[in-house]
Amino acid sequence: MNIGLIGYGYWGPNLARNFDANPDLELAYICDFSKERLKAAAGLFKQTKLVEDPQILFNDAGLDAVAIATPVSTHYDLAKKALEKGMDVWVEKPMTAKVEEAEELVELAEKSGRILHVDHTFVYTGAVQKIKELFEEGELGDLIYYDSTRVNLGLFQQDVNVVWDLAAHDISIMNHLMPFKKLAVSATGSSFYGNGIVPKALLTVYMDNNTLGHINVSWVSPVKIRQTLIGGTSKMVLYDDNQPSEKIKVYDKGVSLYETNEELYHLKVQYRVGDMWAPKISDHEALSYETNHFVDCLQHRKPSLTDGAAGLEVVKILVASHESLRRRGVPVDLA
Amino acid sequence: MNIGLIGYGYWGPNLARNFDANPDLELAYICDFSKERLKAAAGLFKQTKLVEDPQILFNDAGLDAVAIATPVSTHYDLAKKALEKGMDVWVEKPMTAKVEEAEELVELAEKSGRILHVDHTFVYTGAVQKIKELFEEGELGDLIYYDSTRVNLGLFQQDVNVVWDLAAHDISIMNHLMPFKKLAVSATGSSFYGNGIVPKALLTVYMDNNTLGHINVSWVSPVKIRQTLIGGTSKMVLYDDNQPSEKIKVYDKGVSLYETNEELYHLKVQYRVGDMWAPKISDHEALSYETNHFVDCLQHRKPSLTDGAAGLEVVKILVASHESLRRRGVPVDLA
Amino acid sequence: MNIGLIGYGYWGPNLARNFDANPDLELAYICDFSKERLKAAAGLFKQTKLVEDPQILFNDAGLDAVAIATPVSTHYDLAKKALEKGMDVWVEKPMTAKVEEAEELVELAEKSGRILHVDHTFVYTGAVQKIKELFEEGELGDLIYYDSTRVNLGLFQQDVNVVWDLAAHDISIMNHLMPFKKLAVSATGSSFYGNGIVPKALLTVYMDNNTLGHINVSWVSPVKIRQTLIGGTSKMVLYDDNQPSEKIKVYDKGVSLYETNEELYHLKVQYRVGDMWAPKISDHEALSYETNHFVDCLQHRKPSLTDGAAGLEVVKILVASHESLRRRGVPVDLA
Amino acid sequence: MNIGLIGYGYWGPNLARNFDANPDLELAYICDFSKERLKAAAGLFKQTKLVEDPQILFNDAGLDAVAIATPVSTHYDLAKKALEKGMDVWVEKPMTAKVEEAEELVELAEKSGRILHVDHTFVYTGAVQKIKELFEEGELGDLIYYDSTRVNLGLFQQDVNVVWDLAAHDISIMNHLMPFKKLAVSATGSSFYGNGIVPKALLTVYMDNNTLGHINVSWVSPVKIRQTLIGGTSKMVLYDDNQPSEKIKVYDKGVSLYETNEELYHLKVQYRVGDMWAPKISDHEALSYETNHFVDCLQHRKPSLTDGAAGLEVVKILVASHESLRRRGVPVDLA
Repeated sequence: MNIGLIGYGYWGPNLARNFDANPDLELAYICDFSKERLKAAAGLFKQTKLVEDPQILFNDAGLDAVAIATPVSTHYDLAKKALEKGMDVWVEKPMTAKVEEAEELVELAEKSGRILHVDHTFVYTGAVQKIKELFEEGELGDLIYYDSTRVNLGLFQQDVNVVWDLAAHDISIMNHLMPFKKLAVSATGSSFYGNGIVPKALLTVYMDNNTLGHINVSWVSPVKIRQTLIGGTSKMVLYDDNQPSEKIKVYDKGVSLYETNEELYHLKVQYRVGDMWAPKISDHEALSYETNHFVDCLQHRKPSLTDGAAGLEVVKILVASHESLRRRGVPVDLA
Repeated sequence: MNIGLIGYGYWGPNLARNFDANPDLELAYICDFSKERLKAAAGLFKQTKLVEDPQILFNDAGLDAVAIATPVSTHYDLAKKALEKGMDVWVEKPMTAKVEEAEELVELAEKSGRILHVDHTFVYTGAVQKIKELFEEGELGDLIYYDSTRVNLGLFQQDVNVVWDLAAHDISIMNHLMPFKKLAVSATGSSFYGNGIVPKALLTVYMDNNTLGHINVSWVSPVKIRQTLIGGTSKMVLYDDNQPSEKIKVYDKGVSLYETNEELYHLKVQYRVGDMWAPKISDHEALSYETNHFVDCLQHRKPSLTDGAAGLEVVKILVASHESLRRRGVPVDLA
Repeated sequence: MNIGLIGYGYWGPNLARNFDANPDLELAYICDFSKERLKAAAGLFKQTKLVEDPQILFNDAGLDAVAIATPVSTHYDLAKKALEKGMDVWVEKPMTAKVEEAEELVELAEKSGRILHVDHTFVYTGAVQKIKELFEEGELGDLIYYDSTRVNLGLFQQDVNVVWDLAAHDISIMNHLMPFKKLAVSATGSSFYGNGIVPKALLTVYMDNNTLGHINVSWVSPVKIRQTLIGGTSKMVLYDDNQPSEKIKVYDKGVSLYETNEELYHLKVQYRVGDMWAPKISDHEALSYETNHFVDCLQHRKPSLTDGAAGLEVVKILVASHESLRRRGVPVDLA
Repeated sequence: MNIGLIGYGYWGPNLARNFDANPDLELAYICDFSKERLKAAAGLFKQTKLVEDPQILFNDAGLDAVAIATPVSTHYDLAKKALEKGMDVWVEKPMTAKVEEAEELVELAEKSGRILHVDHTFVYTGAVQKIKELFEEGELGDLIYYDSTRVNLGLFQQDVNVVWDLAAHDISIMNHLMPFKKLAVSATGSSFYGNGIVPKALLTVYMDNNTLGHINVSWVSPVKIRQTLIGGTSKMVLYDDNQPSEKIKVYDKGVSLYETNEELYHLKVQYRVGDMWAPKISDHEALSYETNHFVDCLQHRKPSLTDGAAGLEVVKILVASHESLRRRGVPVDLA
């Protein structure tokens, strides 16, 4: 099977390296409008055709799939063309800039029977897989909250706010772990630097069953924090992506309510505090695992774990949070 | 000077110990409706009268001041009586349950020339004092955000949500460090346990000059985090109250914008990354320092650092966040 | 049962508080040559006789036991007198300054059927008890090393080197966990400050079965470290006494050798890396637990967990390490 | 200038990459007896000749320098041949297996006017450079101790003990920071696994002026620790190589003695506790910096910072510690 990569900027080289290393995939094209970037690619991928115009890929009837790693505003057009040509598609996150675009791509992929895969890389890490596994084994009980802090100094972007950049990771992880109906989003933040870009924001996602998502993202923190708390009724998880080992800690801690005859209150709160446990997690490179999964989907014509529907869900929340941010936290419906 | 303490429950014993230890203060009374608690006090404070009825204190014309450490719903009545009797007042945080009550107490204290002090203990810690000092020396530049995470497992309360309990600390610290006009509050959270109490919430306080307060509080976290980031245009501070030493780290880091002729963007972002510095901070007991300050205010008839006006400001934000919480994040005006 | 305490300096007040709080023990006397210290004690222990001369205790035929919390050079004389008077004895660590003194006390206690208990407090912590328990359940396999770092700035002593002060803790923990025959000690260090006192030292204890003890102690470290690694053939333990929670982490990690046909080597090394686990440990106050244990020994006439024999073992290693330190690491036999 | 690399095993590829990337250096040869390794190199270095026999390099009169990254037992022969051919030499640490071999190479290099550089990489890190700089600026006062813990699980070697592997790093850093006369070494350890290899050891290096080096190395620790304390009379440094940022912390802490008239002691100890400061350190790749330095030495015919004499000093301490280890800590003279 062969694939063509469009976009060789910040993330593209990682895709190229992983596609090239995959035994079942041939990296047929790298496409970028920058001659300089193509030159850099030339040194690494000898067998790959380097082109400036994506149309060349779409015109190659022998090409099985394309990967799109260009700015988000161009995702829709490129993905649409590829799907229309009968190609399978790997597209970077977020899938599109607008909900309607995402919906159209999902529909198009379905109609044409093509694979539409969105690169929500974190879903393919050993850490997130382990948390999912713990939940599915019933270890955590019911999930009641997702609370993430993803802050650092840097990579301040010019055209999108921090929610589109950093919160997209958390939303995809949260959606994967908590496939519950999302009801509404409230988002708050401010533009400190006079360029209209919000570099720091809080997000709240209301879900079915009173489940809650709290997400804190920032490009203007003096320290790097990548810390996620996941509350279950049986156990609670601390997922600290900064740790070189022990990324996941499972706490046998919880709260329970019991009825009481006391005059003042009907319900009393009780705490349970037990052991902590840090399961060994696989240390595979997420992108390599994801590439294998993509190839597997192509070969067996089955939807990817982060398919168009998953990508659409993330776009919906991003768009709604953008709207809420503008209105200082007014909750925006996702129904 | 002598003082009577009303309420000898969770926090009262700390007040009693510090009042008793202060050379300029005599702990004349301890009042509590529980005979058992009074018995516990009897073992420690030999010279102190132990009574069940607060009226006994109000009737003692020789009593200079009272301290009120009872449930918040009773603060207003007790403080009002004391002020009307011409006594100076120390009241626990939050000052009152309603904005109108707080306003009335402030007015009453002003009219009667009495000291009205609210126990926002954190303001008197060596750490917060040092941050204030750094700001006043110009070390931090302009302050642009306050971002705090104050979570742990426990002390789940039956009658108030987590905002009234934990966020009250952060709001008082933030107000002390950022005495800017507060514009609006957005708050989000959920009641997971079916008792109507919100044990986990996010708060956003919009201030003048685009300054932002982000506060994350929870009683249902498996780990204890007490971490505050304070962003300045010159330097940024990490205040980690869990650390036994190096509680404050000052980062010579920042972001600046500069004009550019590039086609796409007018402004470019630049990072500055320099040294980190952990100033030595005083390790005095905050409550002891605060007691000294209170005595000093009484002796020199000057307003306390956390006077009625400061207490009112906190109550306003708490009440507004309660309203916003109910409405899923709709911003509530503070004007 | 009643007890008299001799020595009310640094540690004595902790003993007094715990003896006083124990329901089966009456704190009959506190003895100290300092009038000032006795006055401080007077405020806290109303029923206790305060005396300056220890002889008064020895003359009281109704006194069941004495606790000795004086400088180490006086332990022998005081303990001997108490044992000769038929009293049970609690003595601070290290038991004596000389091996012969310790041996004589052990013999005397045995002959007279008295309890001789040495206050190696760490043995009674929840953490050390949990490690012992893990070992006894076979969780750790065979123990192969004890490696401890116990350093900080301060409490620099004038009359003994750092080994007598800090390493005594580690030796008692190590002996408790590893009751193997101790063969020899090598110790190294230096006196930096011109007062002849060694404030920083390394200790190696050679034990049977190639088991090794490595101990690093210092009064001149800028940071406080209390970190012990305990190597087992099945699992390994990190015991970090600085952590407020998760003091003990059990690592399912290890090394194994297997035979190979390769030309160069007969044995190959293989690593095993699995989960980590932080068992919940009891958070009792060690001294309170130890007091209960002491009372239990007195009531049931059974030897304490840290009896004279255990105390003697520690003294032997301390004396030998003193000698080795003087000779720059030459191993000194313990046989 | 051109260079040939002999040995393309564990470390060789790092050298090749850095030599190749250096604008003033041409990687003319890679030599290894393994065809498989040469094949791996072929994919990366197109212009480089790949050979199995080092003699080919020695016979190439146009070759300026060779780098030797083979097992330590072969260093002497290869370096000697290169020097005799008039080539400059880069040799991996430790320089040789025997003191006499090292001495001979130093002499040979001197006589022939060739550069003999030993790859003690840590000396070229931003962290060690910064500590050296702080010392030279007088910030630390006199240095009184070096205390390092370098432990982890893994890379257990078959032919040398852990001192030759891990302690070599610490000795080179210590020698660089503390260019004082080394007097004696005491080393202790044990072979737990029945293969005669010591995987865990303590080292003490006695230096002039009572300065002390304490080094703890292990291949059998469940956790990875890379922590060095450096004591100065003015300030103290914590160098934690595991930290992604703030690798160096400078503590304004210290101990001072003062005379006193007290009866018991002539000298009293006083502590000073001030700020902590984490200077920004350069995050260059050490090997890249070192390659530049090597090229600079070649071009300007000046000795390298880690020249043959520095390499010899390390070998002397390693050999002495091997002897002391065998004798259970007996100090071995370095004079």
